[in-house]
Amino acid sequence: MAKIALAIHGGAGTILRSQMTPDLEAEYRGGLEKGLHAGWEVLHRGGSSLDAVEAAVVSLEDFPLFNAGRGSVFTHEGKQEMDAAIMNGKDLTAGAVAFVRNIRNPIKLARLVMERTEHVLLAGDGANQFAEQLGVVTEADEYFFTEHRWLQLQEAIARGRVQLDHSTAKPVGTVGAVACDSKGNLAAATSTGGMTNKQFGRVGDTPLIGAGTYADRTCAVSCTGHGEFFMRGVSAYDVAARMDYKGLNLDEAAHETIERLTYIGGEGGLIAVDTNGNVSLPFNCEGMYRGFVGMGGDLHIDIYR
Amino acid sequence: MAKIALAIHGGAGTILRSQMTPDLEAEYRGGLEKGLHAGWEVLHRGGSSLDAVEAAVVSLEDFPLFNAGRGSVFTHEGKQEMDAAIMNGKDLTAGAVAFVRNIRNPIKLARLVMERTEHVLLAGDGANQFAEQLGVVTEADEYFFTEHRWLQLQEAIARGRVQLDHSTAKPVGTVGAVACDSKGNLAAATSTGGMTNKQFGRVGDTPLIGAGTYADRTCAVSCTGHGEFFMRGVSAYDVAARMDYKGLNLDEAAHETIERLTYIGGEGGLIAVDTNGNVSLPFNCEGMYRGFVGMGGDLHIDIYR
Repeated sequence: MAKIALAIHGGAGTILRSQMTPDLEAEYRGGLEKGLHAGWEVLHRGGSSLDAVEAAVVSLEDFPLFNAGRGSVFTHEGKQEMDAAIMNGKDLTAGAVAFVRNIRNPIKLARLVMERTEHVLLAGDGANQFAEQLGVVTEADEYFFTEHRWLQLQEAIARGRVQLDHSTAKPVGTVGAVACDSKGNLAAATSTGGMTNKQFGRVGDTPLIGAGTYADRTCAVSCTGHGEFFMRGVSAYDVAARMDYKGLNLDEAAHETIERLTYIGGEGGLIAVDTNGNVSLPFNCEGMYRGFVGMGGDLHIDIYR
Repeated sequence: MAKIALAIHGGAGTILRSQMTPDLEAEYRGGLEKGLHAGWEVLHRGGSSLDAVEAAVVSLEDFPLFNAGRGSVFTHEGKQEMDAAIMNGKDLTAGAVAFVRNIRNPIKLARLVMERTEHVLLAGDGANQFAEQLGVVTEADEYFFTEHRWLQLQEAIARGRVQLDHSTAKPVGTVGAVACDSKGNLAAATSTGGMTNKQFGRVGDTPLIGAGTYADRTCAVSCTGHGEFFMRGVSAYDVAARMDYKGLNLDEAAHETIERLTYIGGEGGLIAVDTNGNVSLPFNCEGMYRGFVGMGGDLHIDIYR
């Protein structure tokens, strides 16, 4: 059990101490703590990294302050469309969904795509039809509604531009988890509500294997930030490639990938874990909601640099 | 001008000599030749690799025997949904569209996503709305209809399974182009009609940067084959990573990526070009419709091993 490790994130971006109240910060920390507990409980009893990252992300999706599942941001049309992906590092299987609606836990649907179809990515109405055939749990629009997201949309429309989830006054973001289990197997999972005021069926990095989510026998990675730059940089896989082909260790590789992101012009961060239970959580912006459980079982939660 | 090079493909898979007539083979060769001429004409007069790959793919999309643009396969519902992506290696900008309908040349729409939006990937109705706002050329359903695709759908429905575009009796596939221009800049473009009898909003590798399409300052890559395996292997970016991080040359890297694809269990091939005008066209199946123009301007077209 020496190697088990878990890291999670709740989004990265412009997170300013000046705009945070002690109560709100405590709420965020509580949400991250719940996510860590949910994943750690699985790992601690000998469960798989795949089950652990799913459990952690389900918890983060259910927490309304993060931009995933309940609490997802609104599109230009006032809808909530969600993306998620999961990957099993043991055999490189993966599943993902893009702009699904009314699915309580999109990460569970992503896992069903992985396990019950020959496909990797299902999108839109088709993905919702697949969910319906499998009897996946759905919720009415009201379940996903939060007032602060609705206000964010009105502000974004007033400013007339697409708003990244993390560049709002009250920052919040994509959620993700990476884990190493007692057998040394790795897994990664990411889930998001996308961008406020999003138009034209934009798909970000979260549901794209290699961009926002990746796991193999080298490392597991989940990204958060300005998605288009993670797509162009193929950031999640880039960490694994730097370890495998360049011989870097996890922390060196993860930091080089964020340097590449900076070079391309993107903001954000990532969480990564390797088969020895090492974790790395680099980011190039003001803050990232993040937490990890080290090999000794000790919880670490942080928001700012 | 010494370095200019261009390679194209029209799909890879089960291409058997026994099922090919001399007339049909001549038709395929003619389609590839047209595509090469369209791209080469741009490069030869000093144009950019980006313009060259777009011109080549437009020509291949307009040719009804390949599964892209005109001649795209039918989904389960009898629709034609198309995916395309383009990437500029010079600055890592990229644009892509997934399951758009009635767009005459999806690769042109992908380029508009790259040049006119802050996004990389637009999908579904949203992507079609974007096309409408920009006045992109559309065609009625009849333009895209081909009898052999319609018969493939009926056969696939009768067999009750999703049919990969390349595993039919009359094989055809995704199209793509990679180029190096006289300034040593690289670009890649890929376009597809997806899978016959496709359901549930399946998205393949073609529109995903790093999976089916990738270009940077190292190489440009376009993939074709069983898309899910290229997604899990992040195959297009894997070629660049092996060159950049492992120090391999283009041909070594491209072949190792196909070995990795084989290891994961996938079938297909890729075309790649580097900044010195080298080309590599490896595949692990019976055949790949392919062609390239070498540094001397000589055309090479081939189908089988």
